[in-house]
Amino acid sequence: MKAKVHVTLKSGVLDPQGKAVANALVTLGFAGVEAARIGKYVEIDLSETDAIRAKTQVTEMCEKLLANTVIENYRVEIKG
Amino acid sequence: MKAKVHVTLKSGVLDPQGKAVANALVTLGFAGVEAARIGKYVEIDLSETDAIRAKTQVTEMCEKLLANTVIENYRVEIKG
Repeated sequence: MKAKVHVTLKSGVLDPQGKAVANALVTLGFAGVEAARIGKYVEIDLSETDAIRAKTQVTEMCEKLLANTVIENYRVEIKG
Repeated sequence: MKAKVHVTLKSGVLDPQGKAVANALVTLGFAGVEAARIGKYVEIDLSETDAIRAKTQVTEMCEKLLANTVIENYRVEIKG
């Protein structure tokens, strides 16, 4: 199974990297850019063949390693 | 409009960060992890209201700033 994980900053948390990207885009001439926020995207190949067990495992991975749950949200998708 | 951009390494390109994450997950007890690949995920708020023009703009942003097209692929989604 393949898991796709999105890790994004929670909405109240400052995102200096996103601000820098938004400013750079405006400087490059994209005047319509209002804001940008940067997150991580992780693709994981799993030997697990059961989608529900795979989702449980990946959620645990997010809690333990992939996301800092104090400041970040995560979203897990499982594909066969 | 809101744009969601995924930037991922092309398949032939080495991903040491992904390898480190996969190894860390195995060390933490997730023996079923075969591989991990890390990408970037960018959310952009645009003042543009036309979806087609927004997609054209964001594609240009990817070419110019968000992705290194020598080693990375990108995927753009536009939401109203």
